[in-house]
Amino acid sequence: MEMAEDTQVKRKVFQILVDNTSGVLSRIAGLFSRRGYNIESITAGVTADPRFTRITIVTSGDDIILEQIEKQVAKLIDVRNIMELKPEGSVYRELAMIKVEADKEERQQIVAITDIFRGKIIDVAPESLMIEITGNSGKIEAFLKLLDGYRILELARTGIAGLSRGIDHLVFLEGEKPQEKGWIEQHLKA
Amino acid sequence: MEMAEDTQVKRKVFQILVDNTSGVLSRIAGLFSRRGYNIESITAGVTADPRFTRITIVTSGDDIILEQIEKQVAKLIDVRNIMELKPEGSVYRELAMIKVEADKEERQQIVAITDIFRGKIIDVAPESLMIEITGNSGKIEAFLKLLDGYRILELARTGIAGLSRGIDHLVFLEGEKPQEKGWIEQHLKA
Repeated sequence: MEMAEDTQVKRKVFQILVDNTSGVLSRIAGLFSRRGYNIESITAGVTADPRFTRITIVTSGDDIILEQIEKQVAKLIDVRNIMELKPEGSVYRELAMIKVEADKEERQQIVAITDIFRGKIIDVAPESLMIEITGNSGKIEAFLKLLDGYRILELARTGIAGLSRGIDHLVFLEGEKPQEKGWIEQHLKA
Repeated sequence: MEMAEDTQVKRKVFQILVDNTSGVLSRIAGLFSRRGYNIESITAGVTADPRFTRITIVTSGDDIILEQIEKQVAKLIDVRNIMELKPEGSVYRELAMIKVEADKEERQQIVAITDIFRGKIIDVAPESLMIEITGNSGKIEAFLKLLDGYRILELARTGIAGLSRGIDHLVFLEGEKPQEKGWIEQHLKA
């Protein structure tokens, strides 16, 4: 007897390594668009080897959908590797920029809250402040809740970037530019 | 006599305000994909009013292409507003996560460099460190250059988020949930 398929909707974070070609980001997003897959967030940036780009994508669906997404993305041109970043073995970070209305008195209060969260004041205008804060989504939500009594004028969030913890899940791409060789490489081969 | 069209390739940062519907991010990226427009980076997150999402997109092209992009995006379903975030009147920020190979001695050196850049150590393993750093792209590039003597194992970047400085370019969406009314609103109407 087969196991019943799990149709519960889950959220997964994928790390995708791709060739740094113009258009690869829109091609991946286009696949999600055509097939009706949901993108909760997508962030991307060049890796230490400028020939490759690392994409972190947060998506949701049931087990079947998530498996389809992984297989379909892996088949795309320029995609070198796709791997799930599981919560227990990964670090996720997001950046938020928050513009808050602030007179002189409010400014002091908001600066104090920002300090507690190790945020930074990145712009000051006569009637407003801009704050930069980073953390996992929970920390950013908590900070926004603390600002609840103030008037948030604008909020920009990047969506999450992620990396696996430690060195157990490193992906070495074929043809990747060798950096100075250290003892990890020997360690991994041993 | 007409002015010659400027065909020089330029980079522009757009802020796009959209309804927070599932699929809106992939639909915008899909437009870029279909038309062959380049996405240098795209970041997105819900605004203070959870019914809306703010997207920051960095793209490049000549004047004609950039004008097309702005018009085409504005026409999409769920797009409420698109506005250029000009460098002189905006703040841009990006987050980078960097995993560096580090033995005990290297660890101390890397922590010192990270402190100077107001970065944070967010994971420590026996053979590696993970650093979080934020700033404009120039600052992140400068930090990566300082790490040049070490072995960068993995690098994840979010791409840039941006906001306009001060309160001159606030966009109030029709139907936006009114927050506690402050004196900015009166100031703007005056």
